[in-house]
Amino acid sequence: MRRLAALLPILDWAPRYTREEAGSDLFAAVIVTIMLVPQSLAYAMLAGLPPQVGLYASILPLVAYALFGTSRTLAVGPVAVVSLMTAAAVTPLAAPGSPEYVAAAAALAVLSGLVLLAMAVLRLGFLANFLSHPVISGFITASGILIAFSQAKHILGIRAEGDTLPHIVAGLAGAIGQVNLPTLAIGLAATAFLFWARRSLKPLLRRAGLGPRVADLLAKAGPLLAIVISIAAVSAFDLAAAGVRLVGEIPAGMPPFAIPTMDPALWLELLPAAVLISLVGFVESVSVAQTLAAKRRQRIVANQELVGLGTANIAAAVSGGYPVTGGFARSVVNFDAGAATPLAGAMTAVGILAATLFLTPLFRLLPQAVLAATIIVAVLSLVDLGAIRRTFAYSKSDFAAMAATILLVLLVGVEAGIVAGVALSLLLFLWRTSTPHIAVVGQVPGSEHFRNVERHAVVTAPDLLTIRVDESLYFANARFLEDRILSEVASRPELRNVVLMCSAVNMIDASALESLEAIADRLGSAGVGFHLSEVKGPVMDALRRSDFFAHFKGQVFLSQYEAFRTLAAVPAPRLTTPRADLVGAG
Amino acid sequence: MRRLAALLPILDWAPRYTREEAGSDLFAAVIVTIMLVPQSLAYAMLAGLPPQVGLYASILPLVAYALFGTSRTLAVGPVAVVSLMTAAAVTPLAAPGSPEYVAAAAALAVLSGLVLLAMAVLRLGFLANFLSHPVISGFITASGILIAFSQAKHILGIRAEGDTLPHIVAGLAGAIGQVNLPTLAIGLAATAFLFWARRSLKPLLRRAGLGPRVADLLAKAGPLLAIVISIAAVSAFDLAAAGVRLVGEIPAGMPPFAIPTMDPALWLELLPAAVLISLVGFVESVSVAQTLAAKRRQRIVANQELVGLGTANIAAAVSGGYPVTGGFARSVVNFDAGAATPLAGAMTAVGILAATLFLTPLFRLLPQAVLAATIIVAVLSLVDLGAIRRTFAYSKSDFAAMAATILLVLLVGVEAGIVAGVALSLLLFLWRTSTPHIAVVGQVPGSEHFRNVERHAVVTAPDLLTIRVDESLYFANARFLEDRILSEVASRPELRNVVLMCSAVNMIDASALESLEAIADRLGSAGVGFHLSEVKGPVMDALRRSDFFAHFKGQVFLSQYEAFRTLAAVPAPRLTTPRADLVGAG
Repeated sequence: MRRLAALLPILDWAPRYTREEAGSDLFAAVIVTIMLVPQSLAYAMLAGLPPQVGLYASILPLVAYALFGTSRTLAVGPVAVVSLMTAAAVTPLAAPGSPEYVAAAAALAVLSGLVLLAMAVLRLGFLANFLSHPVISGFITASGILIAFSQAKHILGIRAEGDTLPHIVAGLAGAIGQVNLPTLAIGLAATAFLFWARRSLKPLLRRAGLGPRVADLLAKAGPLLAIVISIAAVSAFDLAAAGVRLVGEIPAGMPPFAIPTMDPALWLELLPAAVLISLVGFVESVSVAQTLAAKRRQRIVANQELVGLGTANIAAAVSGGYPVTGGFARSVVNFDAGAATPLAGAMTAVGILAATLFLTPLFRLLPQAVLAATIIVAVLSLVDLGAIRRTFAYSKSDFAAMAATILLVLLVGVEAGIVAGVALSLLLFLWRTSTPHIAVVGQVPGSEHFRNVERHAVVTAPDLLTIRVDESLYFANARFLEDRILSEVASRPELRNVVLMCSAVNMIDASALESLEAIADRLGSAGVGFHLSEVKGPVMDALRRSDFFAHFKGQVFLSQYEAFRTLAAVPAPRLTTPRADLVGAG
Repeated sequence: MRRLAALLPILDWAPRYTREEAGSDLFAAVIVTIMLVPQSLAYAMLAGLPPQVGLYASILPLVAYALFGTSRTLAVGPVAVVSLMTAAAVTPLAAPGSPEYVAAAAALAVLSGLVLLAMAVLRLGFLANFLSHPVISGFITASGILIAFSQAKHILGIRAEGDTLPHIVAGLAGAIGQVNLPTLAIGLAATAFLFWARRSLKPLLRRAGLGPRVADLLAKAGPLLAIVISIAAVSAFDLAAAGVRLVGEIPAGMPPFAIPTMDPALWLELLPAAVLISLVGFVESVSVAQTLAAKRRQRIVANQELVGLGTANIAAAVSGGYPVTGGFARSVVNFDAGAATPLAGAMTAVGILAATLFLTPLFRLLPQAVLAATIIVAVLSLVDLGAIRRTFAYSKSDFAAMAATILLVLLVGVEAGIVAGVALSLLLFLWRTSTPHIAVVGQVPGSEHFRNVERHAVVTAPDLLTIRVDESLYFANARFLEDRILSEVASRPELRNVVLMCSAVNMIDASALESLEAIADRLGSAGVGFHLSEVKGPVMDALRRSDFFAHFKGQVFLSQYEAFRTLAAVPAPRLTTPRADLVGAG
């Protein structure tokens, strides 16, 4: 039962479902439905798909996630970044909007679902940890910029191509002569209104006497207002005749249930994109889910999230949709509106199904420029330039990974950007561990504690050198340590003993073991003793499994204090003078 | 002057060259020449090149290395592994032995030289550190096995193809009916004799009253004896008519000086192989050079070695040779014979030039089976099965990298093997650091030292939890730490304070910083204080550059003892009972 509950989280909450929870869920579902309908149309447009595909992708996936996901408030559906990645993956294979394009997008969703389920079976949820915060943050920021620029053509009312920033800008510049002024007017007005609504509508409503929560939710309905007004304007002034491009006829009716194409050649071509979409979607979704769960002390299980998202994508694929994941904006709205259980998601699905069945004729006169404006305002809120500055100040290597991600997303593409960011952050970590910080340490006077002689006034003895290496010892830094210890020894003629303080050594691999043996040999032939201190349990266990101690002539001290007391003898220990620029560090 | 001396190490020793050193160098040169001539012919055969190419590759490169290399005793020339890699790289492009094949091998040498020089300019000598000992050892062992099998066809006197172990074995099995018995007799006799000479000749000569050094050197001349005897046998019994394949006419004369082909398409095709050959050659060469330098307390400069080997390869390319590097066997012989300066190498070059000019007719009747026997005996001495066993006992992840290298070298090829080995060892390191060892620690009674509660009987307080994480905190393990701390806290209702002991934390990246902030937040909202202890200088510096301390409400203690004294209060501390199976580790 317990295992079944882990696989079907619905068993956890459904038996105890209360009337009060039902009320909260229903209210949240209404709010989210109102927000999701235009957003779904917009993201389908971003992905190069007919608008109804966005609606289809917002129905069944919500139900699938409600059954299998662990977050109580995550709202699953089309999101900006995944829509962009879908467009990038499918455009080379078919003409945007064509039936082949729609079929390929569905195939991408089923593949992405299978990848997520395979990751769940192999318990690969931890893989998401290899996407560092700076890489994710850089990726989201750059994608936001790229998406905003890609929507500019709809605001300008021109046709332009391009999927990298230079191409998009060149395309816009080349077609700037064909700007449609009525479209531009609507587009700019909608963008300005939506920015204003996001920033200033809520304070205004608060001042008008509304409660904070109601004001917040009404402010989030801004896109709906923009849509209503623009449809009214199109209809009143016959703007279609003035060249304003509209969403047009959206076929009403049930999502088209069908098995997606099983063409192996197509699947093989889409597989790399599917893997990346799965990973990026998973990371975005888990980040959102964890943030929300933390607020209510609920728990997210990464591997079970893979199951939830995997089934959601397969549900999207069989109901005429395209790849989906847990979205930030919609989940926050769902949470703020008081969603108590995943049933809110299922109710939202019913709401969107109703819209798909009955409301699509209303959107016939909706200008594409307004949808573009909702996308632009949504994605620009994801752009976090402050994070770039903070990362630069904190760590140059984190910043390098972030900058590489941003530049490659903008100049080459989203996939190249994320792959380069992950690769670079791993390489920088390896580089860093291959040239570790190594300190000569001495005793903090009056204590049993040992610190860096360059940072603290500490007691040392001329015949004893204690070196603390601040890294696990492994192949990439083994020779570095060897060189450093031997060069420290070469400059100290009175030396009798060297202690390697291993408090920061969490692992010694086979290469480093050979280096330690080489160091002991070299020191031995120079008449200097070589000892270890503060070797950790797991490291000691490993050393005992090797024949290291068969040759090792030195001692292993439990604490550095013991080593110092035993080995430092002649003449009197002396106090060091730390480097002025380094004093005071902890 | 000093900078020039660093670039031209010859300026270091040449001005002080003594008559005594000249004598030593000349003696060593004679010995090495005798050994190198047959070896050069053999390795050229292994590389699929005409025999004289091996001689050409043993002349000018020695001179170039003598000018630019830092080792006093390294002997540069064709070596087994690089010959095999050359064959693997060039065979797809041209028929072995053809002029195009020879030209491609020379182009490979010039490319490899340029790669090495580029690495020197970019100071990339440290890259060799990423080849771990188990990967190198596995690579050498598997290459030795592969090379030995590839030579079996010469011993059997059959024609067979194949460049992976299964192909080679299948090729041999398919042609086993065509075995030439006289060839087999010569091949087996030579192999047996050479094995015996390597193992038993030296003790025999010692018992016959020779000094240890003379006996050793005479024993190393075993191949020469095998060659003389086999040539005599071929000539006496007219074995050529019996189908024994001979080396045949080797054109006498100067090496053909020429600029190698500059075909960009060819260069592009050869580049990946050139990069790998450069890296592998560099690692092999530096390992040998360092081993020998350590014995005489001389110094090897990795970046200058890149210059030495780079110019040696370019020298090989312009004088009709193929890729070269510092060889193990020849360098040891050079060292043992008493070579004092790189001039020994230059003198060896003169000796081999003389052989190329005047002695090649002598090798016309040399059976190929004897050359194959010298290769087999040489490479099987590189096979170190004991290292596989030792690595397995010491570390499963080192063993995994080694096993992957061995299997892929044997089943796919040398390049796939080394790439897979390096990639796997890096991934295993990343995986290991992403799931670090985390220990709850307590005070060792009567000391200021803190150790793992599961391994030691230590003092803890119920209201204070101290967690030591044995790894730098970075993106791959940030969430792992978060989960672990929160789950430890959840099981301790009396808890008032948590201390994260950072003695093993050598770096905190931006992702981990966010995790620490999240941990502090979560603990804060549960009414538990969060503190740090033993934060190292460089980590503290980085934290101060961020806005971490603007939000952090806990304390940072210089030592864990201070933290314990300050925070552990009520009620009385108690002694833990360590886990029986872990007691006694350091």
